[in-house]
Amino acid sequence: MRNIKITVEYDGTAYSGWQRQEGAGTIQEALENVAGRIMQETIRIVASGRTDAGVHALGQTASFRTSTALPVERIQAGMNSLLSPDIAITAIEEVPASFHARYDSASKVYQYFLYNAPVRSPLRRRYCWHVREPLDCEAMGLAAASLRGRHDFSAFRSSGSDVKTTERTVFATSLLRSADNMVIFEIEGDGFLRSMVRSIMGTLVDVGKGKITPETFRSIMESGDRNRAGATAPPQGLFLKEVRYR
Amino acid sequence: MRNIKITVEYDGTAYSGWQRQEGAGTIQEALENVAGRIMQETIRIVASGRTDAGVHALGQTASFRTSTALPVERIQAGMNSLLSPDIAITAIEEVPASFHARYDSASKVYQYFLYNAPVRSPLRRRYCWHVREPLDCEAMGLAAASLRGRHDFSAFRSSGSDVKTTERTVFATSLLRSADNMVIFEIEGDGFLRSMVRSIMGTLVDVGKGKITPETFRSIMESGDRNRAGATAPPQGLFLKEVRYR
Repeated sequence: MRNIKITVEYDGTAYSGWQRQEGAGTIQEALENVAGRIMQETIRIVASGRTDAGVHALGQTASFRTSTALPVERIQAGMNSLLSPDIAITAIEEVPASFHARYDSASKVYQYFLYNAPVRSPLRRRYCWHVREPLDCEAMGLAAASLRGRHDFSAFRSSGSDVKTTERTVFATSLLRSADNMVIFEIEGDGFLRSMVRSIMGTLVDVGKGKITPETFRSIMESGDRNRAGATAPPQGLFLKEVRYR
Repeated sequence: MRNIKITVEYDGTAYSGWQRQEGAGTIQEALENVAGRIMQETIRIVASGRTDAGVHALGQTASFRTSTALPVERIQAGMNSLLSPDIAITAIEEVPASFHARYDSASKVYQYFLYNAPVRSPLRRRYCWHVREPLDCEAMGLAAASLRGRHDFSAFRSSGSDVKTTERTVFATSLLRSADNMVIFEIEGDGFLRSMVRSIMGTLVDVGKGKITPETFRSIMESGDRNRAGATAPPQGLFLKEVRYR
């Protein structure tokens, strides 16, 4: 069996997230269906991790095993020709049998886009969160920096998620405001709990509005108490930018 | 009667262009309908000019007369609350009775976005034209520069348009390629014929592919022969960026 790694870009607006589930359109299902048609066998695709409903990806990675003799370029072109316009395989390569898209990933980079202006922007609405109130981005950046390092991120996970440990390591954060009122938060970590980036973003906006200080943000993280954190930011601003491997 | 100037941003994807027409959803109709509800009178909105079906605007301008006593901020907030998410009034001001959104405009700036990469990009698909073949952007920029000045632009107009003169003045052009494979063409002129920017763009892409030289591009413009120009580029890459007034 050959082992194939793919990089996938998708507009998550119309999908119930990555993971296949009964009665809902998902990215995994869309990819597995076209892969099966191109390779004429049942294909099971494993991603670096799930993305939630409405979340986008610039560089999600995944892998699958196949017995086809087709060159990878033909697999890519064939799948792209059958996929809906909101999903595309942007890169493909054959990898050693030992490669696993999830277990071998060293880090993931997420970006969250927020539009901070009094009036909403029709041309940005599909890909960012509109926040009217002026935001103190310096305070937000200070708060974001306190995420760096290894922490228990229970305060920023969605209820009902079931994982072995809630400790994760954040390698880098940045928060910047562009000239056209976009606020872009970027975070790189070895893994993320369910809704973790959106819970962080919702709480960072509380900092930006002056409802809490950067110090309180840090104490919320350290408390592990989800009830003290802010609302979960909406999905359309979130992008899985890149998955890095060792 | 008061005279009110508005700046409008819209995602033109779902609309049959600016101008009101029987049996088709247009930006003008959407705005006039909500204006009528807010001001409780029949409002006729005059734009700086039409945009075609599927074309977007970051800064379309328009004006209307009203006898309402409502402050402009209330008119703006009221209309925005009733408008669909793909249209918004981003600025509003009261102007002298003599102001006319169309006749007083000094220039318009259009931008055309093109994504030049072998594989399509799902996240860019709504707002640019995907061209797979590698493009020579230096040659395209040279060709674009020959548009500057006063010319008869008959070669770049859509058939069936009915205007007094086909002469227009182009004040500035630029064409640049970004690090992420976007090619952005910007053009400022005192006016544009129907489909002119998209016809120019289609012909510039012929230059980029090496099908014609920048010199041939110039001779096509000078010939005034629409049959020698390239195909009309698709609407989703075109944005009316700004309308400038004296």
